[in-house]
Amino acid sequence: MIILSSANLQKDIEDQLKQSYQDLDFLFYPDIEAAADDLPRADVLITYGEDLTEKEIEIATNLKWIMVISAGMDEMPFEAIAKRDIMVTNARGIHAIPMAEYVMHMMLFVSRQTEVVLEQEEAHVWDRSPVMNELHSQTIGILGAGAIGKEVARLAKAFRMNVVGVNRSGDHVEPFDTIIPIENLAEEVGKWDFLVSILPKTDATSNLLDKAIFTKMKHSATIINIGRGNVVHEEDMIEALDNRDFHHAVLDVFNEEPLSAEHPFWAHPHITVTPHLSGISPMYQPRAIDIFTSNLDIYLNNEKTYTNLVDPKKGY
Amino acid sequence: MIILSSANLQKDIEDQLKQSYQDLDFLFYPDIEAAADDLPRADVLITYGEDLTEKEIEIATNLKWIMVISAGMDEMPFEAIAKRDIMVTNARGIHAIPMAEYVMHMMLFVSRQTEVVLEQEEAHVWDRSPVMNELHSQTIGILGAGAIGKEVARLAKAFRMNVVGVNRSGDHVEPFDTIIPIENLAEEVGKWDFLVSILPKTDATSNLLDKAIFTKMKHSATIINIGRGNVVHEEDMIEALDNRDFHHAVLDVFNEEPLSAEHPFWAHPHITVTPHLSGISPMYQPRAIDIFTSNLDIYLNNEKTYTNLVDPKKGY
Repeated sequence: MIILSSANLQKDIEDQLKQSYQDLDFLFYPDIEAAADDLPRADVLITYGEDLTEKEIEIATNLKWIMVISAGMDEMPFEAIAKRDIMVTNARGIHAIPMAEYVMHMMLFVSRQTEVVLEQEEAHVWDRSPVMNELHSQTIGILGAGAIGKEVARLAKAFRMNVVGVNRSGDHVEPFDTIIPIENLAEEVGKWDFLVSILPKTDATSNLLDKAIFTKMKHSATIINIGRGNVVHEEDMIEALDNRDFHHAVLDVFNEEPLSAEHPFWAHPHITVTPHLSGISPMYQPRAIDIFTSNLDIYLNNEKTYTNLVDPKKGY
Repeated sequence: MIILSSANLQKDIEDQLKQSYQDLDFLFYPDIEAAADDLPRADVLITYGEDLTEKEIEIATNLKWIMVISAGMDEMPFEAIAKRDIMVTNARGIHAIPMAEYVMHMMLFVSRQTEVVLEQEEAHVWDRSPVMNELHSQTIGILGAGAIGKEVARLAKAFRMNVVGVNRSGDHVEPFDTIIPIENLAEEVGKWDFLVSILPKTDATSNLLDKAIFTKMKHSATIINIGRGNVVHEEDMIEALDNRDFHHAVLDVFNEEPLSAEHPFWAHPHITVTPHLSGISPMYQPRAIDIFTSNLDIYLNNEKTYTNLVDPKKGY
């Protein structure tokens, strides 16, 4: 059985896989181009998913299982995969820890005026006047109540924040204090100090955060987007921040990535741009491979209880 | 009964006190100089403590109770106070929330290389290469296991950190995972990713963090000092950071405050200076006055179970 990786795995992880599964053949490649010649032989493919097109699926005539070691699968050729009945699993959930830490950091960063404090430090100025707001008792609304949203909620509750989750049904989910259905967003958003979006890219989420929402927000509120860039109506957001409709935006994801150097978000005084960093972690590959090996054991034993099974017909 | 404040209270708090205690006379002043003429009539004094000398105690012949709405009382004329048997209460504990939020923020700030990320933003550079370390699974050692240390520990545990407390006895305190006695610091410090000092200024704490400690730390470790500046041996710290004995220091307190513009800490690439901000909060006076009014009710009812009673003979 041949397991091929196009995911440029860390050397120590490659060694550990070979060591743990000595009966299997591992082929490790830095990318899909380098792997091309061996693709027809692969039984299992480990990939970040973004390197696959219908062509690769066609070439990989022996393929039975694709392990996508990421969560976003916008680029996957699911139709071709479904036709061939190839099993797909992914690594959803493993972004929760770094992304929740990013959100807590950025809420503190904005609340404690860290950019102002750093400018004062640069100038060797001792000035205790910047207001240091607390997270304690503030209200956070989290769009998306899945694994990442729940981890943000858990940490926010540790800070004694009021934690509102937003999902499609409005059905309660732990550990949120309250869940509201997405259709009530416009009437609830005015109560929030922080709006965090973890929404995926779908037709329903496109431009969800537009002028109609921004004008209903608290003037002191902050938006943090770590889901997908399409959720934010870019022109409306700039206009709303220029009008001081709300206070600040921290954006980690964008309609086009990398964000071009000319994009007005970079220089806007009320926008903090980070380059899709929120999910990055040295623990990323180790956690993804833990999911893979747990599924590999199930595969080898012909069991059926896979973790993070994806339905290629639905795309999630 | 006359209650005099030299603490420049917020107007809404003054109004609320007058409203709640209509039988009492309140005299509100911006500072002790403005209050001088009325000091002899005051039964109760609300103060930050730093404005009191033996002279004020002598003048305030009617004084029975001093409410110090801070926690550090380094400057209080305790001998004169003890001689007159004046009751002292303070606001210890109310720094816990903002200081713990400061610590979590600064650990994330260093771990996620936020200064580098901000420089890249300034230059409109999309660069995802800076390593984003997690707090998850890291070890934090907290010098001082009182109200503030416990709140830091509680939040650190929410981030799934390993939390070590340090106190004099080594006796266990919740919610720390482990407590070690201060005399074991040198042998334990090498296991920590973060060292947070919340120690007060005493003879025993002076220069506690010196070369002997710095050289035993992990090269990747960060020190955060929010207690008192005397705990850090300044020259040793600069030498240790120049040698890369440890990674970074975040300093909010200093031997001399304000820190002079010429001090080498400001410009050091591995030191972040903040101007004694960690305990600042818009909630400070409301929380301090909550303690005061709770004690005032006890005072008016001739009860004895005061919150945060201070022994003037001991100074704490």
